[in-house]
Amino acid sequence: MPSQGTLGVAVVGTGKMGADHARRLQRVISGARVTAVVDIDEERAGALADSMDGCRAYTEPVAAMAAQDVDAVLIASPGPAHEAALLEALDRDLPVLCEKPLTPDAASALRVLEAERRLGHRRIQVGFMRRYDAEYMKLERLLHSGRLGRALMLHHRHRNPSMPPWFTNEMLINDSVVHEMDVTRWLLDQEITAVTVLKPAPSSYAPEGMDDPQFVLFETESGALVDVEIFGHCGYGYQVHAEAVCERGTVRIGDESGPRLSADGRWGGAITPDYLERFADAYDRQVQAWVDATRRGEVTGPSVWDGYAAAAVCEAGVAAQREGRRVEVELIERPAFYA
Amino acid sequence: MPSQGTLGVAVVGTGKMGADHARRLQRVISGARVTAVVDIDEERAGALADSMDGCRAYTEPVAAMAAQDVDAVLIASPGPAHEAALLEALDRDLPVLCEKPLTPDAASALRVLEAERRLGHRRIQVGFMRRYDAEYMKLERLLHSGRLGRALMLHHRHRNPSMPPWFTNEMLINDSVVHEMDVTRWLLDQEITAVTVLKPAPSSYAPEGMDDPQFVLFETESGALVDVEIFGHCGYGYQVHAEAVCERGTVRIGDESGPRLSADGRWGGAITPDYLERFADAYDRQVQAWVDATRRGEVTGPSVWDGYAAAAVCEAGVAAQREGRRVEVELIERPAFYA
Amino acid sequence: MPSQGTLGVAVVGTGKMGADHARRLQRVISGARVTAVVDIDEERAGALADSMDGCRAYTEPVAAMAAQDVDAVLIASPGPAHEAALLEALDRDLPVLCEKPLTPDAASALRVLEAERRLGHRRIQVGFMRRYDAEYMKLERLLHSGRLGRALMLHHRHRNPSMPPWFTNEMLINDSVVHEMDVTRWLLDQEITAVTVLKPAPSSYAPEGMDDPQFVLFETESGALVDVEIFGHCGYGYQVHAEAVCERGTVRIGDESGPRLSADGRWGGAITPDYLERFADAYDRQVQAWVDATRRGEVTGPSVWDGYAAAAVCEAGVAAQREGRRVEVELIERPAFYA
Amino acid sequence: MPSQGTLGVAVVGTGKMGADHARRLQRVISGARVTAVVDIDEERAGALADSMDGCRAYTEPVAAMAAQDVDAVLIASPGPAHEAALLEALDRDLPVLCEKPLTPDAASALRVLEAERRLGHRRIQVGFMRRYDAEYMKLERLLHSGRLGRALMLHHRHRNPSMPPWFTNEMLINDSVVHEMDVTRWLLDQEITAVTVLKPAPSSYAPEGMDDPQFVLFETESGALVDVEIFGHCGYGYQVHAEAVCERGTVRIGDESGPRLSADGRWGGAITPDYLERFADAYDRQVQAWVDATRRGEVTGPSVWDGYAAAAVCEAGVAAQREGRRVEVELIERPAFYA
Repeated sequence: MPSQGTLGVAVVGTGKMGADHARRLQRVISGARVTAVVDIDEERAGALADSMDGCRAYTEPVAAMAAQDVDAVLIASPGPAHEAALLEALDRDLPVLCEKPLTPDAASALRVLEAERRLGHRRIQVGFMRRYDAEYMKLERLLHSGRLGRALMLHHRHRNPSMPPWFTNEMLINDSVVHEMDVTRWLLDQEITAVTVLKPAPSSYAPEGMDDPQFVLFETESGALVDVEIFGHCGYGYQVHAEAVCERGTVRIGDESGPRLSADGRWGGAITPDYLERFADAYDRQVQAWVDATRRGEVTGPSVWDGYAAAAVCEAGVAAQREGRRVEVELIERPAFYA
Repeated sequence: MPSQGTLGVAVVGTGKMGADHARRLQRVISGARVTAVVDIDEERAGALADSMDGCRAYTEPVAAMAAQDVDAVLIASPGPAHEAALLEALDRDLPVLCEKPLTPDAASALRVLEAERRLGHRRIQVGFMRRYDAEYMKLERLLHSGRLGRALMLHHRHRNPSMPPWFTNEMLINDSVVHEMDVTRWLLDQEITAVTVLKPAPSSYAPEGMDDPQFVLFETESGALVDVEIFGHCGYGYQVHAEAVCERGTVRIGDESGPRLSADGRWGGAITPDYLERFADAYDRQVQAWVDATRRGEVTGPSVWDGYAAAAVCEAGVAAQREGRRVEVELIERPAFYA
Repeated sequence: MPSQGTLGVAVVGTGKMGADHARRLQRVISGARVTAVVDIDEERAGALADSMDGCRAYTEPVAAMAAQDVDAVLIASPGPAHEAALLEALDRDLPVLCEKPLTPDAASALRVLEAERRLGHRRIQVGFMRRYDAEYMKLERLLHSGRLGRALMLHHRHRNPSMPPWFTNEMLINDSVVHEMDVTRWLLDQEITAVTVLKPAPSSYAPEGMDDPQFVLFETESGALVDVEIFGHCGYGYQVHAEAVCERGTVRIGDESGPRLSADGRWGGAITPDYLERFADAYDRQVQAWVDATRRGEVTGPSVWDGYAAAAVCEAGVAAQREGRRVEVELIERPAFYA
Repeated sequence: MPSQGTLGVAVVGTGKMGADHARRLQRVISGARVTAVVDIDEERAGALADSMDGCRAYTEPVAAMAAQDVDAVLIASPGPAHEAALLEALDRDLPVLCEKPLTPDAASALRVLEAERRLGHRRIQVGFMRRYDAEYMKLERLLHSGRLGRALMLHHRHRNPSMPPWFTNEMLINDSVVHEMDVTRWLLDQEITAVTVLKPAPSSYAPEGMDDPQFVLFETESGALVDVEIFGHCGYGYQVHAEAVCERGTVRIGDESGPRLSADGRWGGAITPDYLERFADAYDRQVQAWVDATRRGEVTGPSVWDGYAAAAVCEAGVAAQREGRRVEVELIERPAFYA
């Protein structure tokens, strides 16, 4: 891996997220370029490769990873395909940025974790990009500074204007609330120990069979209480708020700002329509940080342990959601390797 | 009762709240004056009476209510003394503004309710002053306009800088959260059906034996879910926020505003230190509305039913708090009289 | 004048402002009632008097002031009628709250000033109600606290959704900017020494012949520089902002707040439509303060000197507006009587 | 110049700004790397070159521009050195990003303008980075959308916590207000025709001999009026606000946002300490846009005409500041080449 040269990246998966990452690596990020794209859809991979100088298309991750000009791998394929690609990359000792989820369940996450441990050094960063959002970063620094005492509660709001028709109750946990699981663990620097899911009477705009919104409660090791409003069809925009209640102060992030327009009897401004726009800077910063660290020969950011813990909390969350009761989270003891 | 003349009011109880109401009636409110003050502490009552022209001191509510120049009664004595004073006022058909709680428990509230029904017309308004706060009023109008669809959730924050040493866990429910109970019922126009109380690990600034903060959950008739953060020792000021999550929009009230100072590397402003300052306008507006309605021969504002329902929810809340489980609220069927 | 009894007030002028003040005295203010209303329009005065118990209608201020039950006078007639009514009230030693302007020009204001000096004690308060607005009051206290050092500049914004068709360029100065003149003098505690009026190319929504918006510059005794944007047809609401630039900090007031609605892709809230709604509390507070002081036998608030100074600055402002040049303000030396 | 390859950039000037741009090109920007650094201070240039792989140090711009691996030039040397470097780059037909000012005066700017015209195509972009700030960009789009009608006035605030001891009155215009000159021209899409500079009594924190703050007025071709508060020693942080007053609405940008902390009796947040932090994203976006355009063989962004116009307005501004009068701006007719 070149310490000063340009990092050659294979992007695995060329759907919405993969294509966006390829564009980011090619146009935004310093020190990297896309040398390979991989998709079982050969045509789609080919079209993307053609748009970038010096990039080849593959249909198999293993073939791309074997290429001379591939120094690192960004995995943005569907979740069920992650495990095989991750194990292959570990086999080749290649640095990886893996879009969340690490894998679809705790058992498979554990297999990846074991493989990385056997390898003996970290190679995988999980794509929990909120840790790279400017406001979350300031919140994390403030909480860890100790200035406000211990955090007692976190209140999260996570609202989408609408969701695709194939979105399920389980995906509300696994694909949406999983972000709050990760930032909770990161902000509080401790594990989530139990999950409860409450369901108010659903919005009449929620699809048949979906309970929307839902209200999720986490308990943590130190006894902090965390609530998450997850709302898939709020109708008006994409909104992510968080408020930390500490012993000596409270902090809120996510309030919209930007130009303040006074017109037509109202003051205010625009709300971002989706997560790609809301977290555009976070995505950029995440990938740049990964490229920078990789070129220095380091691995930073959310680890396989973080991916495994999120998968375990998701499993508890889905059970709590289905069974209408508080469910405890089961985690293996944290290996010293991930201390 | 004079339709145009000045309303003579007896203020029962001359502690912090009663004295503040006497000052308000005398100095702020149009169309009323204090003609009697009542307190078992004869000296305190006398001193307050002496400060107001044409005002007499009494040690018994019954004596004050019998006076010629007393047209109406404002009750601000301790809760356990309310029932007797309310029944006496109903007996004399006198209009009453009764500070919350109506009475300390649901059973006694029910006795007052029965007495008012027997009288055949409403005479009592309960002092839930948040219904007179400018922002809550706008929120209520917006929710009832139907513009945002149905309300699905309410998030309440209720923070005090600190609490007196004699404050108990039960009082957190009965004296603090009772406000969120009332505004929830009023904003959603329905009853609360169940209460759950969650206790995060307490702040190290909470007194020995107090669980502070707490997180209270209400369920309502239509299935709306309501959460209340109650924090007695947040350390930095008095803060009351509410956020309504509706099918087509969300609304938040309670954000501090006022002069925006930029100095010493920071932007922002001051937080009110206590509820009397935070809700000063609401207290004024409440009492003026009561005086105005009374002079017109009407009774408006929160009713005995509202006082009874709050007492019943408080009982469920305290049980939920003690027993660590969800407790259903038991209410009699709402009499047509209070429809 | 009764020290504890109810103050009987004659309201002179029953147009929009006078009728609003009559309602305020009758319905909002503690310790006063309207015992007389005066208007050359006999029918209008009669109708207003009939709506209030114990109130008589007059067509001449002098007749109302002579009535037994008139203890004080609130003047809300057109500016040209003020001088005669003020001199009559001084003659009878009656306390007066006089809507701005004190009188239409500096010469007539000076005559009132001389009459009050001859009387030997202050009787007249001028209705510059912004001094009673909660945010302006906080700003004034902050500036006078010395915490931010000396004030170097003030930036004022004064916007109306639209103006009546008979509104003239001169009235922009005399009726609108006069408020900024007064708060400038009050906030900085010094006189305005020169005025310049700049005219950008007018809005296409401005009526033929009106220069709208305009940009007015004040210089003060200590060398502070003050700018005022006056905009009569901004189209969207009534907006008054002020920003003080001091040696060690800046403060801004007037930003809209209230419920923050997220809906339809936007966050924000409502803007007040007019000055009566924007400054409702200030009007109430002003009149209550006048009634309270009057009942104590005192005179507080803006004085005849303030009314005279405003008239003198307005004269300079209109000259500057007409002639397109900087015009110095001419003031007599401030009498010790108004020190 | 390579259409897909990495752009080799020579950075001329290795002071604070040049070193920051070198870091940016090397670490942040996609598609470029620093292949040469130039400084008359040989040691400083050498140290910087040594920190970047494949970068050589030069003491003369001409030598760097002659190098094989230099495809483009970023000029960040002191203003008086710009003309020679720009003419040299034009001679070699090299793309240039030139930190403002283009040159120190209008006459020298005109010589550069003539040289570029003779070359026959644009090669030079001037570093007015505010055009790349997210809020300014939204403001510009809103103004140009026509939704709010014509812009009638702009109010600018430009505050620094303090300035270096060698900063002069002239530099307040040439180095600070020059930014407001450029954004005014860009936002309103027209030239500034006259400048007036007003001087309030200075802050006691201003250095001996500096008039701080100052208040600068621009008039524009269409008759818009623009005011700029420039304050060099506000003491508390770096603050840049702008407010556009249009026929149908107003827009304000620059209000601080970010985490909202409630603690110690106050709500609010932090103010950025300096322009590098406040405009960090704008600097990044500017250089990325320049690299992207250059690699496509295009020239976008502020042109030599913009640099010349700014220089001419600065000359008028300094004259207005010295002579205490309104000074008209003299511009040559805009060449079709820069239409």
